[in-house]
Amino acid sequence: MNEDFMNCRAVGVVRSPFKERGDAPSQGRHTDAVSIIEVFPEYQEGLDGLKAGDDLFILCWFDRSDRTVLKTRRRGAENEPLRGVFSTRSPARPNPIALTLVKLVEVTDGTLRVRGLEALDNTPVLDIKPYSEGIDTPRET
Amino acid sequence: MNEDFMNCRAVGVVRSPFKERGDAPSQGRHTDAVSIIEVFPEYQEGLDGLKAGDDLFILCWFDRSDRTVLKTRRRGAENEPLRGVFSTRSPARPNPIALTLVKLVEVTDGTLRVRGLEALDNTPVLDIKPYSEGIDTPRET
Repeated sequence: MNEDFMNCRAVGVVRSPFKERGDAPSQGRHTDAVSIIEVFPEYQEGLDGLKAGDDLFILCWFDRSDRTVLKTRRRGAENEPLRGVFSTRSPARPNPIALTLVKLVEVTDGTLRVRGLEALDNTPVLDIKPYSEGIDTPRET
Repeated sequence: MNEDFMNCRAVGVVRSPFKERGDAPSQGRHTDAVSIIEVFPEYQEGLDGLKAGDDLFILCWFDRSDRTVLKTRRRGAENEPLRGVFSTRSPARPNPIALTLVKLVEVTDGTLRVRGLEALDNTPVLDIKPYSEGIDTPRET
């Protein structure tokens, strides 16, 4: 497997009120703050079809996360046993790709205003995907 | 922004009944097939805490997707207008990271048996995240 193929490109960047790690909530759901996603000009064509009110998964590259961590604890749960990172939503993981469901408040030109993103200011954005109830809710079996 | 930092590592690989593009459903929800995720030994510690019945988001690198596409149509919707890839779940996108919610059928050693993955055989796996109803369902506003 040639891992050279797996180099991500930033399609945009987050402009956020959260400047430092301690400022941000552990999950975007815990904030009503509005963040801006600036999509770079060469990718703006990909936004066609998005509209205010849409629910979007934002995939960010958490460039300030520790990629060597395999066991962790939830924030504020220092008395719990360690868990594998793949059973948590910790930002520390081998590929620090964060997945956050946000509400699109407004889209103008290449700029998305979204509610519910916990990413720090300047975080690279890798992808934007529309939420779809049909495929994004758990299966019965 | 230094994009050298955004190089993904395969934490595992998919063993799937879908060998070629035409074999796979457009979304994992449309299949009951069971796929295997083989997590590589150096990452298996990260699986601690996962158990059968869990709902998991699997992030895969769709290495056979076209990264240059910014406008597309849904499969089978050739009469619809083109849409920006960020308003679709098309595998063709600047960073071909697929997001699929699966049911964990069984976990043994470093192997996960999952139901509902549409990835082709040999697809690299980037991340495994537990679904959480509290953060993965749309916000009211």
